[in-house]
Amino acid sequence: MEVKNRLLNFDMFIYQNDDWFTLSLDSVLLANFVTINMTDKKILDLCTGNAPIPLLLSNKTKNKIVGVELQKEIYDLAIKSIKVNNLDSQIEIINDDINNISGRYESDFFDIITCNPPFFVTNNKELFNDNDIKTIARHEVSVCLEDVLKVVNKLLKNGKRFAMVHRPERLIEIITLMRKYNIEPKKIRFCYPKALENANILLIEGVKNGKMGLKILSPLIVHNNDGSYTDEVRKMFGE
Amino acid sequence: MEVKNRLLNFDMFIYQNDDWFTLSLDSVLLANFVTINMTDKKILDLCTGNAPIPLLLSNKTKNKIVGVELQKEIYDLAIKSIKVNNLDSQIEIINDDINNISGRYESDFFDIITCNPPFFVTNNKELFNDNDIKTIARHEVSVCLEDVLKVVNKLLKNGKRFAMVHRPERLIEIITLMRKYNIEPKKIRFCYPKALENANILLIEGVKNGKMGLKILSPLIVHNNDGSYTDEVRKMFGE
Repeated sequence: MEVKNRLLNFDMFIYQNDDWFTLSLDSVLLANFVTINMTDKKILDLCTGNAPIPLLLSNKTKNKIVGVELQKEIYDLAIKSIKVNNLDSQIEIINDDINNISGRYESDFFDIITCNPPFFVTNNKELFNDNDIKTIARHEVSVCLEDVLKVVNKLLKNGKRFAMVHRPERLIEIITLMRKYNIEPKKIRFCYPKALENANILLIEGVKNGKMGLKILSPLIVHNNDGSYTDEVRKMFGE
Repeated sequence: MEVKNRLLNFDMFIYQNDDWFTLSLDSVLLANFVTINMTDKKILDLCTGNAPIPLLLSNKTKNKIVGVELQKEIYDLAIKSIKVNNLDSQIEIINDDINNISGRYESDFFDIITCNPPFFVTNNKELFNDNDIKTIARHEVSVCLEDVLKVVNKLLKNGKRFAMVHRPERLIEIITLMRKYNIEPKKIRFCYPKALENANILLIEGVKNGKMGLKILSPLIVHNNDGSYTDEVRKMFGE
């Protein structure tokens, strides 16, 4: 069912459809993780969904943000969210396959590219959802990690940053593909559900044709032992 | 100066020479990290130094441990440490270059291989020590990461484990080389000096010709905010 929700504790709203999915922690973590400087004028968010990342980034930068979403039903939610927050002049959403997006811009056009891509490889049928819209959003049916990196390689400026949220078990493949497409991994942050548990979320930032030199940032613990969110995460929620 | 020290809080001793180096946290972490089962009968420790890892592992297994150390002066300390702890029948130390060690054993001989290798690439002259013995122990003068993995590829049994301690900034190179030599990374644990600091130690375990499937284990925090060791590390010290 389509609902209009407050966006975390910010003075903003987001349209969602809870039959498909609602705002994920992944989007919040990525929006907080990515480095955006004053000089980063053009920002691109691939696989933008109902635009949680562009919406959250509008708290971090006043520069132009473009989101790309393949699925018309989800694109429509994004457009409604942009409008209700009066962000039409800052955020543009394109309803297209990311594989077509390179043709719309010159090479080396964007200063920052973010992506919260489908996480699951498509040969793992067990993880599939009955619901088509949800399946496409969560699995690599229409877009795979290599497609994302091809676009990044083409559209990101030299020396500028690509940031992604993904799953730690795919770390090796992620690093290998980033390097194949000249995005040198510079910062990784692992997120752990609790302090004594294995990581379940990976945040990674790379620089196009950057120098080698990887930093593993301090661990991000999401929940206290009693199950409540940690102070760091609560700050990201705008509390 | 050569000294005989108690080995942490264990009822054991280790001979050290504080002109070169003394027991490092790296060795303690690696000895605790590596998985050793009852069925792992033959264990090899490459770049063994004055044998801290074989000594610590003797608390974890009663099976045979072989250490390899290139430098005669350090090898002599290892031998003295083995003797003073009456571990001659369990631990054997070989004074040789690891590049010669493959010829001493059949292929697929060992169940477990551990290594705390020289960390610094040799073209970084700034990090060099004046002292030759210390330089060789800390830098890739005589042995590089690829040499280690060549030996591991040859001497480790199929489906058995290689565990190493290294620096997080070399993660990408480590993963790439492990895969090149058919050691599939299965577990990584990052160690952080304090909870809010970047990782400075990497623990990694891989399986020879293992299936893909990497886990990032819970973060290991070494110090509390007041600078004291955390409970987890104090347990490793035998407290």
